[in-house]
Amino acid sequence: MLYEVCLVGATGAVGAEILRLLEERNFPVKTLRCFASPKSLGKSISFRGEKIPLEILKKGCLSTSRLVFFCAGSSISKEWIAEAGGYVVDSSSAFRSDPSVPLVIPEINAHALKNNPKIAASPNCAATILLMPLFKLHRLFQVKRIVVSTYQAASGAGAWLLQELKNETLAHLEHRPYPHLLPFPYAFNLYPHNSKLQENGYVEEEIKMRDETRKILEDEAIQLSATCVRVPVLRAHSVSANVEFKKPFALKMVYEALEDVPGLKLFEDRAQNRFPTPFDATGKDDVFCGRFRIDSSRPNTLEFWAVGDQLLKGAALNAVQIAETALETQNSEALL
Amino acid sequence: MLYEVCLVGATGAVGAEILRLLEERNFPVKTLRCFASPKSLGKSISFRGEKIPLEILKKGCLSTSRLVFFCAGSSISKEWIAEAGGYVVDSSSAFRSDPSVPLVIPEINAHALKNNPKIAASPNCAATILLMPLFKLHRLFQVKRIVVSTYQAASGAGAWLLQELKNETLAHLEHRPYPHLLPFPYAFNLYPHNSKLQENGYVEEEIKMRDETRKILEDEAIQLSATCVRVPVLRAHSVSANVEFKKPFALKMVYEALEDVPGLKLFEDRAQNRFPTPFDATGKDDVFCGRFRIDSSRPNTLEFWAVGDQLLKGAALNAVQIAETALETQNSEALL
Repeated sequence: MLYEVCLVGATGAVGAEILRLLEERNFPVKTLRCFASPKSLGKSISFRGEKIPLEILKKGCLSTSRLVFFCAGSSISKEWIAEAGGYVVDSSSAFRSDPSVPLVIPEINAHALKNNPKIAASPNCAATILLMPLFKLHRLFQVKRIVVSTYQAASGAGAWLLQELKNETLAHLEHRPYPHLLPFPYAFNLYPHNSKLQENGYVEEEIKMRDETRKILEDEAIQLSATCVRVPVLRAHSVSANVEFKKPFALKMVYEALEDVPGLKLFEDRAQNRFPTPFDATGKDDVFCGRFRIDSSRPNTLEFWAVGDQLLKGAALNAVQIAETALETQNSEALL
Repeated sequence: MLYEVCLVGATGAVGAEILRLLEERNFPVKTLRCFASPKSLGKSISFRGEKIPLEILKKGCLSTSRLVFFCAGSSISKEWIAEAGGYVVDSSSAFRSDPSVPLVIPEINAHALKNNPKIAASPNCAATILLMPLFKLHRLFQVKRIVVSTYQAASGAGAWLLQELKNETLAHLEHRPYPHLLPFPYAFNLYPHNSKLQENGYVEEEIKMRDETRKILEDEAIQLSATCVRVPVLRAHSVSANVEFKKPFALKMVYEALEDVPGLKLFEDRAQNRFPTPFDATGKDDVFCGRFRIDSSRPNTLEFWAVGDQLLKGAALNAVQIAETALETQNSEALL
C-alpha cells in the first residue's frame, strides 16, 4: 500500500530530516506534497530524484492526503490540523498535553497509538533522549524522582540558530564584529533555556520534560525537576540524569536491562574513560547512554548520561517511526 | 610591608591571571620571581612595566621568598613545596585533602587559614563556583544533599585546551582537516569530564567537588553527587545545582540571604528571561547566580544556576585573595 503524504514545514531542520528518512527508510510514499512559508514559493526540493515544488498551505490542500507530518511549529499545527484528511503526526508541542492525543515514542508506548486513529504527537526532544535509556528501568524499578540537567544543541531552536552559531563563532574567531540575533553572544557561550518563564521559576521546556515524562511513562506520580540549558553544540542533545527509583536494584541489573533495548546504544569504555559525546550521536538513529553509576547519597538512586541526535530520534526519526507504526497497525486492523 | 614573591607556573593560564591580579590589586610585591618549564628559559614576562626573566626551579630558589604561589599542577607542587621558605598558596589539588592544610575560599572560611601558618590550598574551580552562592544558605538552612551538573570551560584543563578549542573550531568552520589532540572532536562538542574514573563510576573531578564541599563548609555529613562535563566554552564554568536543605525556607529568604554576599552577584531579569551566561561572567571577579526556584518534588529543596570565571574566582583570584588574607592576618598577629 502506498500513501499520499504531506509534509508541512519541509524546509525546516526537522522537515529536511523527515524528507531524507522517508527516502532512506523506503517509506511507502505514492505522492509527496511539501509545504513551506510563502518565501519558499517557486522553489522546489528533491525527493527520490524528483523535484517537488514547495507549496503554501491553502484551504483544502491537506484534505486528500492519507498522512500529514506537521513540523512547522505549534501555531501552524493548531491552525491547520482540522484540514488534514488523513492521519496526523505532529512534531510540535501543540497537542502533546491533550489527553485525547497519544504522545508516543514507539519503542516505549506504541500501544497508545490505538487510542486515537487520527493523530499522534511526537515528544519534546530532550524528554525523548532522557526516556530512551529510562523506560525499561522504570518498568523494572519504578521511577520516583528525576533531577535532570540538559545540554541542548542549537538545532532544537531551528535551522536558523544552527546557522547563527556557526556564523557567530566564525566571526568571533576572525575578530570581526557580529550583530548576534540572541540578546547575548552564543559563540563559545551557553545559556539557560529561553522558553517562556513560568510563575514557579521553571521555563516551559523544563515543564514539558516533566509532563511528557509522566504521560509517556504513564505514571502521573513521577517527580521531575529539570534545568534546561542551550549549549554551543550543533545538533545532538545531552542529559545528565539523577534518578531515584522506588525499588532497590544493583548496577548489574541496569546493564542487563539495557542490553537489548531497540534504539538505544550503551556506549562506555571505562578503560579509555570514553563515554558518549554529541559528536558520537550526530547523524545516528540510536540514543547513546553511559556513565551509569550508583548515587549512594540516596537509596535506590542512579546517575547516568545520555546523548541523542536532536533532529533524528529527538524529532524527525521519531515522527517517521510513529507514522510507520500507526499505519501498519491501522492496516493490519483493517484486514481483520 | 613589601614581600618577595615567587610564582611557580607563571606562563600557564592561571599564572598569567595571578600576575595580572598582583599588579591590578596593588599587591605588596617587593620582588617577583617567575618560574616556568625549561622551554621558557630565555624568555621573560612583563610585570609593572618591568621585564621579569623566566627561571626554572632549582634547589634553593624558593627559600628566601615570603610568599610562593604554586599553579603548575599537583606534581610540581608536591615536588617543590618543601623548598618554599615562606607562605605557600597552592592552586593544585596536591594538598587539598590533607587535614593539616586549610582549603579556603576567603569569603567562606578565612578563619581556617589560622590553622596552618605555612600553607593554604585554593579549591577546585567547579566547587568554588557551586559554593559561592551556597555557603550562606548552608549557614541558614543546612545543606543535606546536592545533585549538581557542571558545564566546565576549556581553560580548566589549561591554556593548551583553550587554544585547541579555538584552533579546532576554526578548522571545522573552514572545512579543514584537523588532527585534534583529544581522543574525540571538541569543536561544537562536549564530553563527560575526563579526569581519572574511579571504581564507583565517578571521575576524580566529581569526587573533588564532594570532598571539597564538605571540607570548606565544614560538614562531613553533606551528600553530593556530581556530573562534570567539559563544554566548548572558553573560560567560565557553569553549574546547575539541586540542593536539599535540612530546614524549611521560603524563596524570599533565599533572595534576602544572597543580597549582600561579597564576591557574589545575583543576576536575574525575569521579565527579559535573562540569567547568567559564561559570557557575562568572563573577566569578572564575582560569581554570578540566578534561576533560584523551589523544587517542589522534595521538601526544602532549591534549584539554582551559577557561573564564574574559572581563571579568576575559580583559580587565580581566589589564590591571590588567600595570600592577601593570610599575610594580613599574620602581620596583625605579629604586631600584637
